[in-house]
Amino acid sequence: MRIHAFAARAPAAPLQPFDYELHKPGPYDVDVKVSHCGICHSDVHLIDNDWDISHYPLVPGHEIVGTVAATGTAVEWLNLGERVGVGWQSGSCLRCEWCLNGYENLCQSKVLTCVRRHGGFADFVRTDSRFTFSIPESLDSAGAAPLLCAGVTVYAPMRRYGLRPHHRVGIAGIGGLGHLALQFAHAMGCEVTAFSTDPEKKSDAAAFGADHFVLNHDPAQMRTIERTLDFILATAAAPLQWTAYVKALRPNGNLTILSRLSSKGDEGVVSAPAALLVAGQKSIAGSVTGGRALTQEMLAFAARHDIAAKTEVFSCAEINSAVERVRNNAAHYRVVLET
Amino acid sequence: MRIHAFAARAPAAPLQPFDYELHKPGPYDVDVKVSHCGICHSDVHLIDNDWDISHYPLVPGHEIVGTVAATGTAVEWLNLGERVGVGWQSGSCLRCEWCLNGYENLCQSKVLTCVRRHGGFADFVRTDSRFTFSIPESLDSAGAAPLLCAGVTVYAPMRRYGLRPHHRVGIAGIGGLGHLALQFAHAMGCEVTAFSTDPEKKSDAAAFGADHFVLNHDPAQMRTIERTLDFILATAAAPLQWTAYVKALRPNGNLTILSRLSSKGDEGVVSAPAALLVAGQKSIAGSVTGGRALTQEMLAFAARHDIAAKTEVFSCAEINSAVERVRNNAAHYRVVLET
Repeated sequence: MRIHAFAARAPAAPLQPFDYELHKPGPYDVDVKVSHCGICHSDVHLIDNDWDISHYPLVPGHEIVGTVAATGTAVEWLNLGERVGVGWQSGSCLRCEWCLNGYENLCQSKVLTCVRRHGGFADFVRTDSRFTFSIPESLDSAGAAPLLCAGVTVYAPMRRYGLRPHHRVGIAGIGGLGHLALQFAHAMGCEVTAFSTDPEKKSDAAAFGADHFVLNHDPAQMRTIERTLDFILATAAAPLQWTAYVKALRPNGNLTILSRLSSKGDEGVVSAPAALLVAGQKSIAGSVTGGRALTQEMLAFAARHDIAAKTEVFSCAEINSAVERVRNNAAHYRVVLET
Repeated sequence: MRIHAFAARAPAAPLQPFDYELHKPGPYDVDVKVSHCGICHSDVHLIDNDWDISHYPLVPGHEIVGTVAATGTAVEWLNLGERVGVGWQSGSCLRCEWCLNGYENLCQSKVLTCVRRHGGFADFVRTDSRFTFSIPESLDSAGAAPLLCAGVTVYAPMRRYGLRPHHRVGIAGIGGLGHLALQFAHAMGCEVTAFSTDPEKKSDAAAFGADHFVLNHDPAQMRTIERTLDFILATAAAPLQWTAYVKALRPNGNLTILSRLSSKGDEGVVSAPAALLVAGQKSIAGSVTGGRALTQEMLAFAARHDIAAKTEVFSCAEINSAVERVRNNAAHYRVVLET
C-alpha cells in the first residue's frame, strides 16, 4: 500500500509530500486510516532534531485518531472501521517489570510513533495494535486527538500523585497541556489555580475550570499564594521561578515538571533551596506521558466529564503554517490536522 | 525546683554549668528526670546559632530519656517513675490540620525542645506531656536516646515514601543518622546500599545491615549502580553529587534529603537535570523529623527489631569534649551524655 505523508527531509526543514510503501502487516500490526492528527510541540522538537534522536525523512504526528483499515493475523480485538487513537508510543517490550506494571512509558525498549518510524501526518499510519486505544463515542475526533499525548501527559502525574477532590492544585502554563490539565483537575473536584505570564488568558483559564488566576512573573501575586497548593503541575517548556513555586506549595506538597526544559545545547536544570524542601517536606518530580491503562482510563474520564482539547483545525494544505503556529506557541490551544 | 543544666552563653561558646528555677508545672507539663541525652548535630547548630534561631543562655539537648518526676494536673496517662523519651519537638498547637493529621512536625506553631526553652543537658527537663513517648522495655536508655530525634528523622521519610520489602534502598552518609537508617531499611526487608566517602566504614555498614557499599566520590562505582535504587535517603549535611544520585535511582524513584545543606551565610541548593527527572519520573524531596504517631511507632519497631544507636557515652564532666566530637563529625556513631 502506498502511503501519502508529509515529511521533513532535514532538521527544521518545511514539511513536504512524501510517499512510502507499506507491505503486509506483521501479526500485531494495525493500519489506521488517519482522520485527525494533533500537532504537539514534541513534533516541532523532532522536526528540529532538538533531542538528537530524529531520523530523516521524518514524518511527525503522534496524536492520531482514525479508523482501523487493516490488521495483522494476531489482532482479534479490533474491527475494521473501528475508531481508535494512537499516541506518543507505538510499542514496548511488554515483558519488563515496567511494562508488566502498566508503566510502558518507562520501558527501556519503548518504540516512539515518529522516531525511526513514520507518524501520523499521513493518510495512514501503521502501529502496534496493542498501543491503540478505543475512542469513547461521545468524543469528537478533533478534540480527542490531542488527548492521546497532551491529555495523558497531564492526567498521568495527577493520578500518580494521588490527586483527590480536597486537593488544591496549581497548573503553571495555560497552553496545549495546561488547558487540558485545568479541565482534568476541575473535573476531579479540586480547587484549581492557573498560573500564566499572560493576563489575557484569565478568562479562558476560568472557562477551562480555574478558580483562581495568578500572574507568575508578579512577585506580589506569587507571595499571596505561598503555602496554599498541594500539587503544582508545571506544563510549560520554560524554566520556572523554582523558589516561588516551591513556596506556593503547602507542606507535603509536590511540584511536577513535564518538560526537559532544554533548548539546543542547554541542559535544563531544576533547582530549589534545600531548606524549603526539608522544612515543608516538599518534593519536585518529573513525569513523562503515561502507560496504556492510564491512557485508556483518561479517555473514559474525558468522555464522562466532557473534556476535550480546544482546537484550531487545519487542512493538510496548510500543514506548514500549522506547524509554525505550534513552533511560535501561538495556538489556542491545540492545533489539529484534518487529513 | 532548681535545675542544674549546662548552657552556652553566646554563639559557639563552651557549655558551662547553668542553674535555673522551675515553678509549678502547668496542667499538661511533665518534668522528666534526665538519665541520658544524645548530642545531635542540631545541638551544635543551635549552640553556634547557625540557623539564627538561638537564644542564650542556651541549654541544648533534645534526645532525652528519663523518668517522670512530676506532672501537671491534667496529665493522667503518665505515672511517676515511668520511663519516657523527649525529642526535637516539645509542643504544637494540636488543633491545625497538620497536628490533627499526625504531622505535628509541620505545625506552624511548633515548639522546639531547646529553642526559647531549656533542653536536656540537665538533671531535669520540663516538656509538654503530650510530646513524651513511652520507651519500650527492651530498649537500653543510652541506645534509645538518639532514636527520639535521629531515629524518627530517618524512619519517617521511609514510611512516607511507602518503603516495602521489595524496594532497593540507598543510604547516603554513614553517620549518626545513616547508621540508624541502615538498620531500619534492613529490618524492613529491603536490599540496602550504603554510600560513603570513607572506605573504612564498609565493615560497619555491613554490620548495620548494608548489602552493598559504594564510595560516592568514585565515578566508576557510581556508574555501576545507575538505575538500581527505588529510594535514596541522603543523611549527610554536605551537598551530594545530585546528578550521579538521581542517575542511581530506578524509574519512579525518590531521593529524600534531610539536611538544609546550609552553612553560615550559604543557602544550600538542590539541583538536578530536568531531563533525568522527567524521563525517569524521578523525584527529590525533603523531610523533617516526624509526628507523634510515627515517633511512637518507630520506637516499637526499633524494639521489635533490636535497633539502637551505636553510642559513645560521656559523663557531664566531659560535656565539652563530647560536643566537640559531634562538631567534628568524629562520633562512632552517636554521642550520648549520661547525667
